[in-house]
Amino acid sequence: MLTNETFRNQAHQVVDWIADYLENIQQYPVKPSIAPGALRAALPDEAPQSGEAMDDIWKDFLNMIVPGITHWQHPGFMALFPSNASYPGILGEIAVSGLGINAMMWDTSPSATELEQTVMEWLRKATGLPDGMLGVIHDTASMSTLTAIISARERYAQFQVNQHGFHGYDKLVMYCTDQTHYSIEKGAKAAGIGAAQVKKIATDDAHAMIATALTKQIAEDKAAGLQPFMVVATLGTTSTLAFDPLEGIGNICVEHKLWLHVDAAYAGSAFFLNEYRHFLQGIDHADSYVFNAHKWLFTNFDCSCYFVKDANHLINTFSANPDYLKRTEESVAMFKDWGIPLGRRFRALKLWFVLRNYGISGIQELLRKHIDIATNFRNQLLSDTQWELMAPPVMNMFCVRYHPQGINDNEALNALNTALLKSINADGNYYLSGTIVKGMYMIRVVMGQTHLEQVHAEGLLALMRSSANSINDFKALR
Amino acid sequence: MLTNETFRNQAHQVVDWIADYLENIQQYPVKPSIAPGALRAALPDEAPQSGEAMDDIWKDFLNMIVPGITHWQHPGFMALFPSNASYPGILGEIAVSGLGINAMMWDTSPSATELEQTVMEWLRKATGLPDGMLGVIHDTASMSTLTAIISARERYAQFQVNQHGFHGYDKLVMYCTDQTHYSIEKGAKAAGIGAAQVKKIATDDAHAMIATALTKQIAEDKAAGLQPFMVVATLGTTSTLAFDPLEGIGNICVEHKLWLHVDAAYAGSAFFLNEYRHFLQGIDHADSYVFNAHKWLFTNFDCSCYFVKDANHLINTFSANPDYLKRTEESVAMFKDWGIPLGRRFRALKLWFVLRNYGISGIQELLRKHIDIATNFRNQLLSDTQWELMAPPVMNMFCVRYHPQGINDNEALNALNTALLKSINADGNYYLSGTIVKGMYMIRVVMGQTHLEQVHAEGLLALMRSSANSINDFKALR
Repeated sequence: MLTNETFRNQAHQVVDWIADYLENIQQYPVKPSIAPGALRAALPDEAPQSGEAMDDIWKDFLNMIVPGITHWQHPGFMALFPSNASYPGILGEIAVSGLGINAMMWDTSPSATELEQTVMEWLRKATGLPDGMLGVIHDTASMSTLTAIISARERYAQFQVNQHGFHGYDKLVMYCTDQTHYSIEKGAKAAGIGAAQVKKIATDDAHAMIATALTKQIAEDKAAGLQPFMVVATLGTTSTLAFDPLEGIGNICVEHKLWLHVDAAYAGSAFFLNEYRHFLQGIDHADSYVFNAHKWLFTNFDCSCYFVKDANHLINTFSANPDYLKRTEESVAMFKDWGIPLGRRFRALKLWFVLRNYGISGIQELLRKHIDIATNFRNQLLSDTQWELMAPPVMNMFCVRYHPQGINDNEALNALNTALLKSINADGNYYLSGTIVKGMYMIRVVMGQTHLEQVHAEGLLALMRSSANSINDFKALR
Repeated sequence: MLTNETFRNQAHQVVDWIADYLENIQQYPVKPSIAPGALRAALPDEAPQSGEAMDDIWKDFLNMIVPGITHWQHPGFMALFPSNASYPGILGEIAVSGLGINAMMWDTSPSATELEQTVMEWLRKATGLPDGMLGVIHDTASMSTLTAIISARERYAQFQVNQHGFHGYDKLVMYCTDQTHYSIEKGAKAAGIGAAQVKKIATDDAHAMIATALTKQIAEDKAAGLQPFMVVATLGTTSTLAFDPLEGIGNICVEHKLWLHVDAAYAGSAFFLNEYRHFLQGIDHADSYVFNAHKWLFTNFDCSCYFVKDANHLINTFSANPDYLKRTEESVAMFKDWGIPLGRRFRALKLWFVLRNYGISGIQELLRKHIDIATNFRNQLLSDTQWELMAPPVMNMFCVRYHPQGINDNEALNALNTALLKSINADGNYYLSGTIVKGMYMIRVVMGQTHLEQVHAEGLLALMRSSANSINDFKALR
């Protein structure tokens, strides 16, 4: 077993490997070519009886585990949304791994609680959120959203669902769109609302919620005796980065006393930039708001930043203080009461490292760099009119499909672009993902990896063009 | 901002600090003496505009953050339950911080999914869980339990709550005891069951559930038209490490078709030892089971191991596959569908490092060492009959109160022991916590920190004796 001395040596080896890995990450294919079940089959069926030397374990890590890794920190990772690490973020995680604390309450590490309060306030100011909103770090937007749904439910039900279940509240309905992240419906199921009570409001050509359609649906539902209690507005949807009209939705929520939750999981980082703050118009009406610093804010996963207008309501929804968790200080925040899990990682440290090492202006520069690279790339790609823009492009993401002249059948285009995406990803230097909106298959390009440079955009441009040509050739041959 | 080269240097500095920290951790008071709000007041109100040198940030970490840390890895941390790190566990976290992957689906890192399957199977075998149970790693037992409650709800309701809310299912009731961890009631609130529908079955003198009382309550509830759907049995309660009678409860669950969830969050690690497997008698009837490898299995937080009898039911409860998460491989596990969060840390790696570096026999030795130290300590402490055992002691934890001759008023004893605990903790070398069971205040001693040695027990024995004497002297003086 490791001693302090052998740990020290081994830890130096591991951090050297990390530095080498990140320096040379482009030598790996972004996505591994490994057969399902291959690793599992290669590993023993049982834990070893006797302890093994860390050197041997580390060799297996390099030879067995790394070849099956999808390299999220590869600058060619442009699929889904990024889950960005950064040098200061990694240092934060390393320090936390050594401290090994649990940030459940102020008592269980005062620094963890107070640093979390501090960095959440820094973020609130740096991204233009309203005065008075208070923040807490959850693991994922899925959990932040579930927290919001339960809080909204309890505000409507005056804490009676928490106490007695849904008696008298079984007609609750909430609103979003079919472009809202699937975790909202998943959260509504978990919270006992039911998927059928999550109503999908119609969207416009830009895939954003139509506020007048929301008004109409609420009126119909109230007339039918249903109990509207919540709207989820998305700033930057997952499929196409659509922005629901926050101000219009906010006014409706005020009128009908509905909880307004704002999901800015990805795009929220961009509110470091003044030029995107207009999307936040109406945020004063939000009861809760989430964005993930682990997506486009260079802070290692997990780090979901959840803000609420009324922290007392949040605490009243989730707090409980059993006898075995008596605390010495009544005056300080107990973040265990700000969400579901009792145990909590010390996530504030990595965020503090990132915000200080980059600084606000450093973050702004990096975000603008990504946006510039993506904008130039998009303009160059679309100069060939066979590439069709599928949604209004914004920030550093856009959706396209390849649409050669003469092919106008949607099914054929879907098949063509599915094959094209597969061909682009097969190259190994880039990983893009697709989506389907209103029956149309499209390729998403998200240019937001921490270490993205112009050269990566150039490589992708050549690859997308050549892949499209090959598809054409292949079709011509048939 | 950090470059690859400056990161490398800084990372070496950080891991050297970790090795030094763990080597010298006994120089710190286990709990810091910091005034609430002091750190917050000392930190700037806003994030810096310009980036700062990592060296300066690191100095602030050492000078401002570390003095406000509660040192969970200090061998004198005997409060609550441990949240143990270990050398291989730290190495695992460090490697993961560099990889920066998100283990949501097989596609997003095949190795992460398959290693998680593998180590969960290793744990199942090593701790004597039934063949066929499958495992997944969640963050905390709170989340594992919420997952269980929702799964149980949906099995009873045939997925109708997920789809339509609680119509027709608003009389669900579940059972535990007043010694069950508070996260069960919290989860029941979140899932829409309601706190009042979580019925607390009477406990015996050992603070364990009385199975016949459960039978009686179920009969009464069914007669009253309620809908019993779930029992939570605890193996090792938080206050006193009481063990509910699993076999008896399991038979009742089978008879009434109730979901049986078993919470072994802390004590589950001890099932590496054959001599404690008798507590698992009846586990065949469990639908779900949780234990936390981050408590007494030397695996850095967070690592909550959740096992289910029927993985298909779990997946049917939580799965959803939106268009933007299309996967290439249908045949492999998508752990995003095994719980609530979409994003998931790569937690299997640290567990793999721990299980291999210690080996099964190494873990067994360390657990037995803790148990031996605790048993000897307890026997020595109780040789003075003024110390009163408050619950049947088991494994490496027990509850006592100081009960000097002549004081028989319970309130006076509670006040005395509250003061005594404060006095013990004020020494700075140990951190114990208290609890209240059936109105009686007691001091919990949990001897399970990774680096615990006999010498730490000796120090605590002297401290508890001298603190008790001081309390006596103080009383005599008055």
